Amino acid sequence: MKETIQLHKDQYIEELKDFLRIPSISSVNDYKEEVQKGAKWLEGALKKIGMENIEIIQTEGHPIVYADWLHAEGKPTVLIYGHYDVQPAEPLDLWETPPFEPVVRANKIYARGATDDKGQVFIHIKALEAIMEKDGKLPVNVKFCIEGEEEIASRNLPPFIDQNQEKLAADAVLVSDTSFIDENQPAICTSLRGALALEMNVKTANTDLHSGQYGGGVPNAVHSIVQLLDSMHHENGKVAIDGFYEGVPTPTAELREEVAQIPFDPEKTKKELDMSELFGEEGFTFQERTGIRPTLEINGVAGGFAEEGMKTIVPKEAVAKISCRLVGEQSPVKVYEYIQKHVEKHKPVGAQVDIKQLIKADPVSLDSQDPMIQKAADAYEDVYGIRPLFPKEGGSIPIVEVFARVLNAPVVLMGFGLPSENLHAPNEHFHLDNFTKGIETVCEYLYSL
Amino acid sequence: MKETIQLHKDQYIEELKDFLRIPSISSVNDYKEEVQKGAKWLEGALKKIGMENIEIIQTEGHPIVYADWLHAEGKPTVLIYGHYDVQPAEPLDLWETPPFEPVVRANKIYARGATDDKGQVFIHIKALEAIMEKDGKLPVNVKFCIEGEEEIASRNLPPFIDQNQEKLAADAVLVSDTSFIDENQPAICTSLRGALALEMNVKTANTDLHSGQYGGGVPNAVHSIVQLLDSMHHENGKVAIDGFYEGVPTPTAELREEVAQIPFDPEKTKKELDMSELFGEEGFTFQERTGIRPTLEINGVAGGFAEEGMKTIVPKEAVAKISCRLVGEQSPVKVYEYIQKHVEKHKPVGAQVDIKQLIKADPVSLDSQDPMIQKAADAYEDVYGIRPLFPKEGGSIPIVEVFARVLNAPVVLMGFGLPSENLHAPNEHFHLDNFTKGIETVCEYLYSL
Repeated sequence: MKETIQLHKDQYIEELKDFLRIPSISSVNDYKEEVQKGAKWLEGALKKIGMENIEIIQTEGHPIVYADWLHAEGKPTVLIYGHYDVQPAEPLDLWETPPFEPVVRANKIYARGATDDKGQVFIHIKALEAIMEKDGKLPVNVKFCIEGEEEIASRNLPPFIDQNQEKLAADAVLVSDTSFIDENQPAICTSLRGALALEMNVKTANTDLHSGQYGGGVPNAVHSIVQLLDSMHHENGKVAIDGFYEGVPTPTAELREEVAQIPFDPEKTKKELDMSELFGEEGFTFQERTGIRPTLEINGVAGGFAEEGMKTIVPKEAVAKISCRLVGEQSPVKVYEYIQKHVEKHKPVGAQVDIKQLIKADPVSLDSQDPMIQKAADAYEDVYGIRPLFPKEGGSIPIVEVFARVLNAPVVLMGFGLPSENLHAPNEHFHLDNFTKGIETVCEYLYSL
Repeated sequence: MKETIQLHKDQYIEELKDFLRIPSISSVNDYKEEVQKGAKWLEGALKKIGMENIEIIQTEGHPIVYADWLHAEGKPTVLIYGHYDVQPAEPLDLWETPPFEPVVRANKIYARGATDDKGQVFIHIKALEAIMEKDGKLPVNVKFCIEGEEEIASRNLPPFIDQNQEKLAADAVLVSDTSFIDENQPAICTSLRGALALEMNVKTANTDLHSGQYGGGVPNAVHSIVQLLDSMHHENGKVAIDGFYEGVPTPTAELREEVAQIPFDPEKTKKELDMSELFGEEGFTFQERTGIRPTLEINGVAGGFAEEGMKTIVPKEAVAKISCRLVGEQSPVKVYEYIQKHVEKHKPVGAQVDIKQLIKADPVSLDSQDPMIQKAADAYEDVYGIRPLFPKEGGSIPIVEVFARVLNAPVVLMGFGLPSENLHAPNEHFHLDNFTKGIETVCEYLYSL
């Protein structure tokens, strides 16, 4: 199999580049057509490798791409999930090469979506192509369900799964949208944090005002938002929203020990990121803070005049984006309510505050001892020579919880990214070694089932 | 005189429109050439009315326009000051008509700079034109000193005044860059607050990070700036910078009474501005807060992703613009030092904070009983039928203090704007009644000297 993959490697990369050229940014309305193009492109790629019953299923948002190949009688069925939508590419000036003009440098492919998640989705497509080429058939039944709304919290996929349980039924759900621990340590993630994202708008007047004429005598929308945002954390890094920690389990000594096994070098991280100090919730390690503890992060804020020069105004409005990572039994619905209550209670004089929920996902935990997951570990070991760890991932893939619950199947989070690949940031890239070895690993896995 | 002005009114307005079409934004580098055009335009306008010795004096920033007419032997000399630079026009989408395409609606002229300060500068030019047309000469000696850096704190004018004391020597400095109390109450401002404006940059990392992978474990530049900005005020509206109130006089009962005379209708203001409540420093009235008390206002803030959609990042940097209004013996130099100390003391873990001073101006107080100011009041009374009040203005015209001190001449702040004319905001405009009556008033004043 390795030879087949090596033989076609350059062609695979050229095809991946085509996929990466489509700016399928799901969160920005102006890119709606481009997301459609992403789905269309996948349809072609799936057709090419012999998949059947290919459908582009339109939703209220962006489409879901379905396909299957069900001719391995008596063999298990694997549902492959991934997403073809990407994060916005801003700030554009920090990209060394344009985000939607993929280039290969030092055996890495640079483009928005390279590692999250087009490159990883494409691993599966090429793995099946390689097997088909060699055997003329697949060793298992395969279904694809690839969505265009992962970066906006899979808004329309949960009802689709609910309504198509039979169509999607599988013995395992295979997902490549996670990362290694570091370049030498593969990982199968067995826990994902939940997520809640929201937008907060503050308004104090119907126009910006002259700071000399009105300043000091009227509410200032930036003062108001700053006061509200600052009220959301204690100085010790804990979240200051009443009720926020409801349902967060106190980590057991065992869990803390397990988490401590995840390699982490604070000095190296600080140096790489030009960071003078690390900071987080008092009483927890970096690995705990980013893996098993809940967080509330302000992702952005804007209000008034902050460009070059100076405008001495009292700003009339301001906006902030906030996202929480949730763990254990925390409920995004309840946390949203608690934030609303907090804002109501801490609302500064004269500020009108509106909150809008953007993303919502429950936390999920998977059993690392499930045979479907253990076989995936075997496949990694065969290809990489190293057995993967089973970390608790700090990120969120909202749909994993839904797949596990509704389809009642183990979800195998077989990631091939690296944490250093700048996902959601400028200069996102994907190591081509993991692209080809990923294809190999997926082939091994499917043969092993 | 009234007849002469009425006769040419339409032509005056067309000429003013030409002046307003030039986007002479002094604070943004890209508009440097446009500011030069503003100076050139003024040169032509001054030539046309028979001014002599016209010079465009280049500086390290934007040019100063000088001109004079010195043939009224034995008569006083009036130095007319104004500025031809304007504020940026953002946010552009809130303008009903484009900021640099002046239009007249309901007897008001709409454009950036209409009231601040091109419309008011043009009053003087047209007043002299009208007198010249009628008499063939002026009743007093006149000098013009019109700058292109008022909106960026007159960076290069103070040294020019210092070095040209003889050239600029005058018996009064006449300035039209202030406002009436309301449309029925003219005002000659006798006190201007000082100003200090600065930019604060916060950096926590060399790249934005994934909030799932790093959030909660690393410093967040938006958290840091929010914490710093929020630390600058107490909840009772007082500024929380140690030393800030040094040199602020306790207002005497007399002053408070005088300030209370300035008409102010809180309900009307709230309704006009869609404001649920007014807010400011505890223990002071709106007129005091905006006239005789010092303030610290955040004019803008930006960091991370705050556009449409969502990017779940830990932002690496953030910026804020801050401006203070200063009174009494407050020193902008010292307040700047105190803010630096405050930031040093309150700097959050892992945040690298840089501060840059943008504007600096001392407060100034003028004697309303000076005959040059009383004669200006007479002129208003003649034209408007109402004697002006002598308010303490909340805004800052940094150069007034320098003129008063260096030239040792009374500064007559003969304003023709209205507080409702949206200066520094979208849909800035200028009432044409005050444009023509302003010309008349200036004529009366010059005849009276």
